Amino acid sequence: MNEFTPTERTEVRRLPQRAAYDRETVYRILDEGLVCHIGFVADGRPVVIPTGYGRTDDTLYIHGSTASRTLRALGAGVDVCVTVTLLDGLVLARSAFHHSMNYRSVVIFGQASVIDDPATKLEALRVFTEHVAPGRWREIRPPSKKELQVTTVLAIPLKEVSAKVRTGPPIDDEEDYAMPVWAGVLPLSSTTGEPLPDDRLPAGIHVPEYLRRYDRKRP
Amino acid sequence: MNEFTPTERTEVRRLPQRAAYDRETVYRILDEGLVCHIGFVADGRPVVIPTGYGRTDDTLYIHGSTASRTLRALGAGVDVCVTVTLLDGLVLARSAFHHSMNYRSVVIFGQASVIDDPATKLEALRVFTEHVAPGRWREIRPPSKKELQVTTVLAIPLKEVSAKVRTGPPIDDEEDYAMPVWAGVLPLSSTTGEPLPDDRLPAGIHVPEYLRRYDRKRP
Repeated sequence: MNEFTPTERTEVRRLPQRAAYDRETVYRILDEGLVCHIGFVADGRPVVIPTGYGRTDDTLYIHGSTASRTLRALGAGVDVCVTVTLLDGLVLARSAFHHSMNYRSVVIFGQASVIDDPATKLEALRVFTEHVAPGRWREIRPPSKKELQVTTVLAIPLKEVSAKVRTGPPIDDEEDYAMPVWAGVLPLSSTTGEPLPDDRLPAGIHVPEYLRRYDRKRP
Repeated sequence: MNEFTPTERTEVRRLPQRAAYDRETVYRILDEGLVCHIGFVADGRPVVIPTGYGRTDDTLYIHGSTASRTLRALGAGVDVCVTVTLLDGLVLARSAFHHSMNYRSVVIFGQASVIDDPATKLEALRVFTEHVAPGRWREIRPPSKKELQVTTVLAIPLKEVSAKVRTGPPIDDEEDYAMPVWAGVLPLSSTTGEPLPDDRLPAGIHVPEYLRRYDRKRP
C-alpha cells in the first residue's frame, strides 16, 4: 500500500536505479516543491504551463481563473502529465560526458477533474494556501462566494506516479580520476530573503513566525 | 528584430500585462535557468520531462543518451513545448484569493531536430557545459568520439516564444487593506552551498573561482 504500482508509462527505463515508487519519496518531493509543470495536448500539440499546487493524500490540486483557456481545457477531463522537479546540485565530473545534476522529480499521469462541490473546493483552496505557507489560512480572509465562483479547482489523482532521484558525487571513468581538475558537487537550494512588507501594511504588524522560519524541507 | 512575434499559441491572453516577447527578457530567463520542462505527445498523451539545456542565439540545445526513449521520440521531429520557470517570491495577500507568486517563465513551441554534424554537436555540448558552469569547459576532458556517438543532441529554434513575468507586491481588494494581517512578498532564490569535493580528488586541487563565485544572475 505504500508503493505506487509502476505502469507502462511510469516505469523508469533509463537509469532505473534512480527510480522510486514509494509514497514517502513521492509525497516528500511534492510537499517540498512550490511549482509544477502541467502538460496537456491542445490541437494535437503539447503545452506545458507552470502553476502552483497543493496535495492531500493521493490528490493533487491545481486552480486558476475560470476565464483561463488552460483551466477550461484541463477541466474537460483531458490527459495531463504533471511534473515537479527539485534541483539539489550540479554534479561536476572530470569529463564533460559525466557531468550531471542531483535532483528529485515526480511525474504524474492522469486526468484532471473539476471540483464542483463548494465545501470540497474551499478545502482544496485551504490545502493550496497551506502548501505555500503553512499557518497562513487562519489569518487571511477566506474566499467569498463570488471568488469561489470565478475560481476553477482541479483534482488530479496520484495513481500513475513515479519519482526519480539522483544523489551523490560524479561517477567518472577510471582513467579520468587522476586529472588535475576539481570535481564534486555544487549544492543548490532554494532560500528565502528578508520578507518585504507591503507599502500599505498598517503599523505594528510583524512578520509571522511561519514566514520568519520558512523552510520547505519537512522533518 | 529584438522582439519575437506573438503567434496564436504564444500570445498571452490571461493577464496580458505580464507578457513579454522581447529577446532580452527571454534570453535572461533562459540564461539564468538550469532546468527546462519539455513536453511532447506520446501515443496521443502528454509527457513532461525535466532536463538541462543550453542556448546560443536563437537555438536551445538539449541532450541525452541515444538509448533514451524520450530523446528518440523527440528526435523524430515531433512538436515540443519547452518551459523554463524561475520562482522569485511568494506574494502574500490579505485574502486567499489574491495570493500569488512572483515568477519569470518562458514558453517555447517548436520542433526539435537532431544535430548530426560532429563539430556542431561538440559545440552544442560546450554551450551546454558552459551554461551550467561558465569556465568549466576548458578544464575538463572533452567528449571522446565514442561518447559523442552515444549522445543525442537536439536543437529547438527560438521562434514561437513568449515570456511571462510577475513582480511586485500583492494587489488586494480595497476593503481588505485595513486587515491586521501581515502582507507582502517573501523573496525566493536559488543559492549554492559549500562545494563538496569528490572523495577521490587528488590533493592540492582547489575549488575554481567560477564555482566559488557561482551566480546564475547575469549583470
